[in-house]
Amino acid sequence: MTRTPTPEFLTRLAAALPHDTVRPRAAGELDDPRGRYEGRAAAVARPRTVDDVATIVRMCNEAGVGVVPLGGGTGLVLGQVAYDGAEPIALSLERMTAVRAVYPSENVIVVEAGAILAQVQAAAEAQDRLFPLSLAAEGSCRIGGNLATNAGGLNVLRYGNTRDLCLGLEVVMPTGEIWHGLKRLRKDNTGYDLKNLMIGSEGTLGVITAAALRLYPRPAQEAAAFMVVRDPQGALDLLSMARDLIGEGISAFELISGVGLDFLTDVLPDVRQPFETRPDWCVLVDVGLSGDGDPQEALGALFEAAHTVGIVEDGVISASETQRAEFWAVRENIPEGNKRVGAISSHDISVPLSRIPDFIPEGIAALEALGDIRVNCFGHLGDGNLHYNVFPARGRDRKEFDTIRASVKQTVHDLVHAYDGSVSAEHGVGRLKVDDLERYQDPIKLAAMRAIKDALDPNGIMNPGAVLRARD
Amino acid sequence: MTRTPTPEFLTRLAAALPHDTVRPRAAGELDDPRGRYEGRAAAVARPRTVDDVATIVRMCNEAGVGVVPLGGGTGLVLGQVAYDGAEPIALSLERMTAVRAVYPSENVIVVEAGAILAQVQAAAEAQDRLFPLSLAAEGSCRIGGNLATNAGGLNVLRYGNTRDLCLGLEVVMPTGEIWHGLKRLRKDNTGYDLKNLMIGSEGTLGVITAAALRLYPRPAQEAAAFMVVRDPQGALDLLSMARDLIGEGISAFELISGVGLDFLTDVLPDVRQPFETRPDWCVLVDVGLSGDGDPQEALGALFEAAHTVGIVEDGVISASETQRAEFWAVRENIPEGNKRVGAISSHDISVPLSRIPDFIPEGIAALEALGDIRVNCFGHLGDGNLHYNVFPARGRDRKEFDTIRASVKQTVHDLVHAYDGSVSAEHGVGRLKVDDLERYQDPIKLAAMRAIKDALDPNGIMNPGAVLRARD
Repeated sequence: MTRTPTPEFLTRLAAALPHDTVRPRAAGELDDPRGRYEGRAAAVARPRTVDDVATIVRMCNEAGVGVVPLGGGTGLVLGQVAYDGAEPIALSLERMTAVRAVYPSENVIVVEAGAILAQVQAAAEAQDRLFPLSLAAEGSCRIGGNLATNAGGLNVLRYGNTRDLCLGLEVVMPTGEIWHGLKRLRKDNTGYDLKNLMIGSEGTLGVITAAALRLYPRPAQEAAAFMVVRDPQGALDLLSMARDLIGEGISAFELISGVGLDFLTDVLPDVRQPFETRPDWCVLVDVGLSGDGDPQEALGALFEAAHTVGIVEDGVISASETQRAEFWAVRENIPEGNKRVGAISSHDISVPLSRIPDFIPEGIAALEALGDIRVNCFGHLGDGNLHYNVFPARGRDRKEFDTIRASVKQTVHDLVHAYDGSVSAEHGVGRLKVDDLERYQDPIKLAAMRAIKDALDPNGIMNPGAVLRARD
Repeated sequence: MTRTPTPEFLTRLAAALPHDTVRPRAAGELDDPRGRYEGRAAAVARPRTVDDVATIVRMCNEAGVGVVPLGGGTGLVLGQVAYDGAEPIALSLERMTAVRAVYPSENVIVVEAGAILAQVQAAAEAQDRLFPLSLAAEGSCRIGGNLATNAGGLNVLRYGNTRDLCLGLEVVMPTGEIWHGLKRLRKDNTGYDLKNLMIGSEGTLGVITAAALRLYPRPAQEAAAFMVVRDPQGALDLLSMARDLIGEGISAFELISGVGLDFLTDVLPDVRQPFETRPDWCVLVDVGLSGDGDPQEALGALFEAAHTVGIVEDGVISASETQRAEFWAVRENIPEGNKRVGAISSHDISVPLSRIPDFIPEGIAALEALGDIRVNCFGHLGDGNLHYNVFPARGRDRKEFDTIRASVKQTVHDLVHAYDGSVSAEHGVGRLKVDDLERYQDPIKLAAMRAIKDALDPNGIMNPGAVLRARD
């Protein structure tokens, strides 16, 4: 169990570090992005170097003081928000934002953990390369947070999760020792995969301070298409056909429901919708090809093939980069639409791909039995990852549903579990889903996680209470 | 420290398992594939079910008896060969070979660990899918061993290592408990990445008994080309150009040296060589495209572009599947050629891609200073993974070099380390490279590995002496 640092400890900590590294927490600065939880900390440390990070962690470890690493603070499951227990030190990476090196011929970039995701993308682009991680918060999230949570996003189908984009890490371990693991190798079988253990551990096993990341050639040409399908099974059939015809050229394959389009009509009427008649289901397919490959032609061929066999009813292919951006604006405004409508409960789930067509309606039926609701189900279909968000029926008020919110969540999660899925596909566990983890995770894996945590962080100082319950 | 089992323990173990699960070791059956080390075991257990595996591991754990998991026995670093210390139980997965399920629409296959790699490939092909792992031993290695060692092979550039092909695992933990982690999800951020910790841990953290693996659509058309380059820098320039022009369509990019071609001429003269004049360096590029993409055309365009700027001097593109197989036969016979010539020392290394052109000649110069040698450097250039094998100069006998073998190895490995590379790119650590691991691995990572090993396997029964030195 950690303890709130004494004023004497804070003075010592500040003295051991360069001027103005440690300061008091400003009101509100550590709160969660939805504004529901107050993030607490005895002080905020903003180190400039890995050695400063090491000093902070070492001193906290010796004193039994918790350390909560902080990236952009955009996480949705409270991994960065210590809202109860002893007050920790918040360790913000905001000053460690350097691009240490770019190796265009290796397709590698080495960045510090505090670099904003958009900054990493831009540094890659400046060398005519692509860093493919892309998600809604990219203008403010930091790459260290993306790594700590194994962030997903829009291009996982083609390029993988953050985990798949990382070749090496520099990490301050819970003892304050530095693991210099910034390898730039595609193949290295010398021992246990400590890198992947750190990635996705949400700051509970150490502080990621820098990373060597994979870059890719930028596709020469890109295009997007909306295609109307009858139902999620139709979307899966289209995905299968698209992978056969276009292979790895498919960068994204996003499912959009009529409910989501209705939300845009209601609360974001300026967003230009792709079809005059609002479809029940459609998908946004994004294709990027190398050399002289023509993505419009590829999407056209896909449409023809799918239309001929009745998988696709209607479709529209972007004729310009402007129009492609317009298409993407529909997809990217859905979360904002959801926010304005106001969800009863939101779920970031995955189920095996072939079970999605059964899961979606079974879930809706189970939820409708609980109350007068609507489900906006959308997301990264190509990855089996759905955002399955529950809203009041039109004309009903969110507050009426406060009493059933917990049972809404449990209904969805129990069903996901029965379908052998995951109750956190891309957002992580944080503090919000610790109960869920205990309820749904395989107990042997959970025991192994606890054993690893105790072995690497015997004093339990790293992000106490996140992922695993803090020890009493 | 483990102990050799008593006869009484062996009797109890046999009685706890179905008839004929446990038998004595037959002479030679556990020896290493090069025939240099005798694999020892008090008995060989050949379980048929995961529950039987759990029984064996649980009883061994209680008695402090070592367990050495055994796949196809093709590993080159003695990971499967317990040649000293207390006698363990050899746990062969050879009877657990079932394909439990194929999900073509999900691009997933679930197989037991004892399935031969070629059998997994065939099961995928029967559903018109590709399981892309491909390596020399595919006719006899088992998928559990591929996972335990994170095998690489020929298609890593496009599809990744074995790690990247695995979605979920079933594992018997060192206590004998079963982790049911056979998820078929592309995204699942619920806790630490135990799956990747198991993959590549070479049987020291548990026994992998089954896996859910990724499949891919089969490319519609494939072709290969040999292209002559001036030197390794030329090969890298060609790789960069190929990735720009053909993107993910490049399945393999293999470097071949003139020394390797000379070996074929000398000891395997029936292998048909691609060029009349033996080049100093050439690459084998393999391309597979979806839909109506034409790989011959793509390779032709690559050749034209590279020839125009002087990167490529000569080239030949396969005109048929037969010719493509003939091209690959050149590459695939190089290890056999090496074997017949007889190496002084072989090295499976990787260095950062952009440093390869400096590394190769610097290594050769350092080795030539030691004696009258030749280096056959070849391999998976696209992954930065070279097989850097040292041979006597023509007319010299291997035995003359016995006295410098150790310094040859250390010269190569020291240089790899100085170049920030890996002394085991794809073969693993096993027992052969434990010293190297201690010499070259980051000490903080090594300490973390040890802590994890002790946490998950407190009695040290799992593959004692592999990867990490066995405790006294």
